[in-house]
Amino acid sequence: MLKRVDSDWLRDINRRRVLREVRKMGAVARVDIADATGLSPATVTVVANELIEHGLLEEARAETEGDQRRRGRPRVLLRLAPGALRVAGVKLAEHRISVIIVDFAGETVGEAETAVRTRAEPLDALINLIEENIRAAARQARVRPRDLAGIGIALPGYVDAMSGTAWWSPVLAEPEVHLTTLLERRFTCPVFADNDANIATLAELWFGVGQGVRNFAVVTVEHGVGMGMVLDGRIRRGARGLGAELGHMKVALDGAPCRCGQRGCLEAYVADYALLRRASSILPDVDLSDPARRREGLTALTALAHDGSNEANAIFREAAAMLGLGMANLVNIVDPGMIILSGTRFRNELLFSDIMAQTLRENSIPFGPPGPEIRTHVWGDLLWTRGAAALALEGLTDDTLFGLQTTRTGAALAGA
Amino acid sequence: MLKRVDSDWLRDINRRRVLREVRKMGAVARVDIADATGLSPATVTVVANELIEHGLLEEARAETEGDQRRRGRPRVLLRLAPGALRVAGVKLAEHRISVIIVDFAGETVGEAETAVRTRAEPLDALINLIEENIRAAARQARVRPRDLAGIGIALPGYVDAMSGTAWWSPVLAEPEVHLTTLLERRFTCPVFADNDANIATLAELWFGVGQGVRNFAVVTVEHGVGMGMVLDGRIRRGARGLGAELGHMKVALDGAPCRCGQRGCLEAYVADYALLRRASSILPDVDLSDPARRREGLTALTALAHDGSNEANAIFREAAAMLGLGMANLVNIVDPGMIILSGTRFRNELLFSDIMAQTLRENSIPFGPPGPEIRTHVWGDLLWTRGAAALALEGLTDDTLFGLQTTRTGAALAGA
Repeated sequence: MLKRVDSDWLRDINRRRVLREVRKMGAVARVDIADATGLSPATVTVVANELIEHGLLEEARAETEGDQRRRGRPRVLLRLAPGALRVAGVKLAEHRISVIIVDFAGETVGEAETAVRTRAEPLDALINLIEENIRAAARQARVRPRDLAGIGIALPGYVDAMSGTAWWSPVLAEPEVHLTTLLERRFTCPVFADNDANIATLAELWFGVGQGVRNFAVVTVEHGVGMGMVLDGRIRRGARGLGAELGHMKVALDGAPCRCGQRGCLEAYVADYALLRRASSILPDVDLSDPARRREGLTALTALAHDGSNEANAIFREAAAMLGLGMANLVNIVDPGMIILSGTRFRNELLFSDIMAQTLRENSIPFGPPGPEIRTHVWGDLLWTRGAAALALEGLTDDTLFGLQTTRTGAALAGA
Repeated sequence: MLKRVDSDWLRDINRRRVLREVRKMGAVARVDIADATGLSPATVTVVANELIEHGLLEEARAETEGDQRRRGRPRVLLRLAPGALRVAGVKLAEHRISVIIVDFAGETVGEAETAVRTRAEPLDALINLIEENIRAAARQARVRPRDLAGIGIALPGYVDAMSGTAWWSPVLAEPEVHLTTLLERRFTCPVFADNDANIATLAELWFGVGQGVRNFAVVTVEHGVGMGMVLDGRIRRGARGLGAELGHMKVALDGAPCRCGQRGCLEAYVADYALLRRASSILPDVDLSDPARRREGLTALTALAHDGSNEANAIFREAAAMLGLGMANLVNIVDPGMIILSGTRFRNELLFSDIMAQTLRENSIPFGPPGPEIRTHVWGDLLWTRGAAALALEGLTDDTLFGLQTTRTGAALAGA
């Protein structure tokens, strides 16, 4: 609840607006910030000068361009001051812990990773490993751990971003892990955690093809199927922070069994383990608990399909149709202006074929303007760690950013 | 885009906050507004006095209560000034046009309706009928049509609330009807239109059980299945304004044919025409195009089920399971804190049975805090017309509300 006088509140909102515009544009003139935000040029000048004073923005000369030569003096642009602060982005995967350190301008300045079967580690040992990787990445970035402004963690599963609780995750040995609380005991900065598909969505919103798009959804297909959504310019997580579970949308009543224990989940038709389960008659048995074996099995199945195997092609066709159906339901419920297919699996042209597009078209709202633009965006692992860093940056309070004395949840408010 | 100086913007936001709080509470003391909004008591006093001056708020003595007697003087409460302005709410149904006039306090002060097969009317004749009903309701309310501050229209189908375009509706003879433009030629006030399920959602948010709930969904089952959603306190309509089409969510790949032309839609299993289609072997043929015949058929089917007919009970069981599956997917995607089942059909205890609740439970996110509270709210037709009036009230610009000279889309901004 807002308990400060309202002009402070307005000032912080304006500061965040200016910061957001500079982040979006990279380097931008004051007058263009005024145009884009609707703030008066005078307000932008005041706010920008305060942000320069706080060390968050810096001035840069524009590169010489033709029209500037004619005007006779170079324009002064504003950009984020890289050294203003640094955050850590952490990705917990089934077989790896990855950490990057990102500066205020979004550049990666340090990284570290450890290969480990995360779920096999006792919780204490896992927290130790995460801590060590953050410290190693910080060392490489020449940042003292206590100078980190925030830490963001991406992990698969059911994660409540508000409380930082992982209710269930395939990378954790236990249910109901208060991940952020455990890590905040090891560091002095605030820690944030979220489902990795929400994190991918944040990465697209902050750094990717979702910049400036008011309504979009991100669909990730890796070992599982994930989703995040931005509606009216903000990521939406639902009442418990557990929304956007496209992988567990039911595409059939009493359908195929899913690893979550329920039946008919999209994931039970589309995820790598589902494809390999269906391929048991044409492929040697694959140890589904081993990510490397699963990757090999999928490569073999793809080769069979390319060689004309009817069974292999049928498996990919059904998966493509089911994914198309799931995306159609996403369009029917949320009506995004863009769907971003994100993750390395979208390199697989057999699975993500015309059949998916056709099923999507045949099963989604057939009226009005054209449906969502479908974009494929293959990032690799950087997606997750950069998104986790974005989560940490987004979570920074006005107090951290602007050095105020009063305490309140400024980030939540400014983002309302 | 905001083009006014920022203190004006802040002032209008604060005015809307105070108005919203008073609307929510009915009658409320200034100090309680300050507590609830986080505004300072001084700001509330300034803003409230301006709103009283504008004729939007009025003062009322609190009813005498024990603790006030002890304090020795009665508290002064603020409430909405009923006469400040009046809007019209219009509901277009298959067989009826209904209109109410609502004052600023939300009370109905006039009404009118005409029984008509809306889809059978040429567009011009239909617009004439809507105009006549609005004028008749205004006469009853002793309001001159040119003194109406806004008109809101609820209709089923695919409606883009931003442009007021009905891309397709079962109550219109033509596709792509620019409904608000057509009616704005007949009246001097702004006209708004939206899908009737979104309208039901607005009614729940403004006047119903959704008041103060940050994340909820409304599901309506009448001739079709509709849905609206409030996420983070605002109704969300998606990129084209066509989202929340629960009725056309696919619950089966290549499933039962739907009247929309696609297959496997939830509506094709749950709507009245779907139940009657399945009942063709145990009921005499019903003219599905006639709402009265459909109602009779459904009554007969319900009686058969009560009398122990296996076929009739199987039809309701399947419909209940499919509705539960659709609601589970709603939970999996949107994670609402509450689902409000709205509309007269929810009186039917056979259809909306334990099977629905069980299917919902077995197919939605099984981790974390308990899933959404399910509430049943039977309003009757008032739901739609009051919701349509809420749409008109919500669409009023700051210029209309506060009488300012500058032009801009203040409503959109204040609601951002």
